[in-house]
Amino acid sequence: MKVGDTHYRSIWRNEDDGKVMIIDQRWLPHEFRIVSLDGLDDFATAIRDMWVRGAPLIGATAAYGVAVEMARDASDAALDNAWEVLHATRPTAINLRWALDDMRSMLRNTPVERRADEAMRRAAEICDMDVETNRQIGLHGLEILREIARKKGPGEPVNVLTHCNAGWIATVDWGTATSPIYQAVEDGMNVHVWVDETRPRNQGAQLTSWELNSHGIDHHLVVDNAGGHLMQHGDVDVVIVGTDRTTASGDVCNKIGTYLKALAARDNDIPFYVALPSSTIDWTVHDGLAEIPIEERNQDEVTRVFGKLDDGSTAHVQISPDGTPGANPAFDVTPARLVTGLITERGVAEASEEGLLKLFPEKKR
Amino acid sequence: MKVGDTHYRSIWRNEDDGKVMIIDQRWLPHEFRIVSLDGLDDFATAIRDMWVRGAPLIGATAAYGVAVEMARDASDAALDNAWEVLHATRPTAINLRWALDDMRSMLRNTPVERRADEAMRRAAEICDMDVETNRQIGLHGLEILREIARKKGPGEPVNVLTHCNAGWIATVDWGTATSPIYQAVEDGMNVHVWVDETRPRNQGAQLTSWELNSHGIDHHLVVDNAGGHLMQHGDVDVVIVGTDRTTASGDVCNKIGTYLKALAARDNDIPFYVALPSSTIDWTVHDGLAEIPIEERNQDEVTRVFGKLDDGSTAHVQISPDGTPGANPAFDVTPARLVTGLITERGVAEASEEGLLKLFPEKKR
Repeated sequence: MKVGDTHYRSIWRNEDDGKVMIIDQRWLPHEFRIVSLDGLDDFATAIRDMWVRGAPLIGATAAYGVAVEMARDASDAALDNAWEVLHATRPTAINLRWALDDMRSMLRNTPVERRADEAMRRAAEICDMDVETNRQIGLHGLEILREIARKKGPGEPVNVLTHCNAGWIATVDWGTATSPIYQAVEDGMNVHVWVDETRPRNQGAQLTSWELNSHGIDHHLVVDNAGGHLMQHGDVDVVIVGTDRTTASGDVCNKIGTYLKALAARDNDIPFYVALPSSTIDWTVHDGLAEIPIEERNQDEVTRVFGKLDDGSTAHVQISPDGTPGANPAFDVTPARLVTGLITERGVAEASEEGLLKLFPEKKR
Repeated sequence: MKVGDTHYRSIWRNEDDGKVMIIDQRWLPHEFRIVSLDGLDDFATAIRDMWVRGAPLIGATAAYGVAVEMARDASDAALDNAWEVLHATRPTAINLRWALDDMRSMLRNTPVERRADEAMRRAAEICDMDVETNRQIGLHGLEILREIARKKGPGEPVNVLTHCNAGWIATVDWGTATSPIYQAVEDGMNVHVWVDETRPRNQGAQLTSWELNSHGIDHHLVVDNAGGHLMQHGDVDVVIVGTDRTTASGDVCNKIGTYLKALAARDNDIPFYVALPSSTIDWTVHDGLAEIPIEERNQDEVTRVFGKLDDGSTAHVQISPDGTPGANPAFDVTPARLVTGLITERGVAEASEEGLLKLFPEKKR
């Protein structure tokens, strides 16, 4: 999407020198830094140290990492090494493994002299597939927003609340939860977004706000505590969030706090949608609360906050007393009963096994 | 309560020189600064600039402000002036006005030569009344915690979640929501507290954490997003919060985000209690959602966070991009239907007009 007047993807190749470029997201929203990734080590660092994040973007970056390595050395040994080095960066990221397996199996069946070109072609294709998936999610979500807009008075904005960042910079373009918003704005709809800060890592404040601000979309940042009050007073028409993992029964594992917003939406009869590429559905899991282990992250994320000082430099501040420990569960599970619908690239599914299988009949056992 | 080995109130007179002392709360939790308030201007500044906060403590501070002024000049003109100066500091604070009216009407009926002594005596009495009210709240709340403790296994802590700071430093001592916790710990109960950070002003992280840490009570700081997940997994036995204003029907207006925790408690069959002195019940209001106006505070509280830098100095950091506006509703209303009970100085009331009138029959119209 746009940063000012320029359309960006989150990863791309320079037209002139063919270098792979990314936005170093560690500095957002305070600095917009573009860097080139020039060798395997650069790609590994960029994934490990979260210069790039978001499952689809991690997968795309790994694919380009393999391709850049193939241009240097297209041997089987180099291919296997690239797989190992990149996989070790974030071993639990499911899209990372998928992209690496896809690249390796394709390249194994490709003559060595053609591997560099084929790898670059396939990496670009993986990016384009992600963009198309998210575009489709946006078009299906757009129908939901249109339906809401039809019931509003003339000039009244459609108010969307979102949590965390399931935006274009977590994917290659469009994002998942944000894709219907970008589609609606391109369609000329009057949309306003409530952006949840999303403590502890503040991805809403840092990333979603930056996206919407950069693209010129009307929005307000709110603390995570505010959503219930906004819903009670009719200021939210629909909630749209992303997900890290969806069960076969429609339970949604997403950034901590999502469940609280789903409860508030239900209490106020506000639709609560989850936008997702079907690749994030885990067809082997049926009870999200019982079966999905929740990552407990470093307590420093709770006791310290990152931001920009008045002199323009960035720093962490400690918000709590020395001696107070933090607890930091990173995700929660929203039961399917609280989810109005799952917006996928094939359409909107009811959040249930039956609903999902209607859209994905090939998954029937 | 205790700071290290020493028992403090939030306002007191020095034994030797009779000076009125407070904790300058602006620097908590990073610095524990005690200052004396020596004249009317000091008291006005301390209230206006939030060196002291919390309705009961503001009232007590104002009472001592009048008393210190009477020691300087006990004339009617000085009395009226003290009322005006102190009332102007935070004109919407209901306890401030109550304390000032109480002091003035008592002093008007007191000969000028006895006013200084009588004012000091009455200010001390106002403090003691607050302490006793909160102690009673704690004893009634203790019964609730004992009932929970009886159902836990041996050695298992009672897990209390609280939001914002309704602690001893918001009152003269004990606090409201924290009073049952302090009583339980004095009683030898194994208690663990989940402290909600309470964005945007972080009163949980800054003040409740500091209180519990200083008193030596087991606790963890969590982001406001975490409570629902903790409740889903059985890690919360009871929620206890304070309130700024309770309606005659039992609706509870409290710090933004309280409503979300009440929803999560209900969804997980966890009791949700509100601790309050009956002075915060507004018997004229019956529908909290429709009738209580919610203060919209400065957006800087959302976009900026206060804390301690690595060099030990304190600063604000901006967490969002330049250009992203914040919205900052400061309170929300939790409907009575989500409240298990109201813990008052007279006992625990059902959150309804009938329940409240059983404890406060003199309020029947």
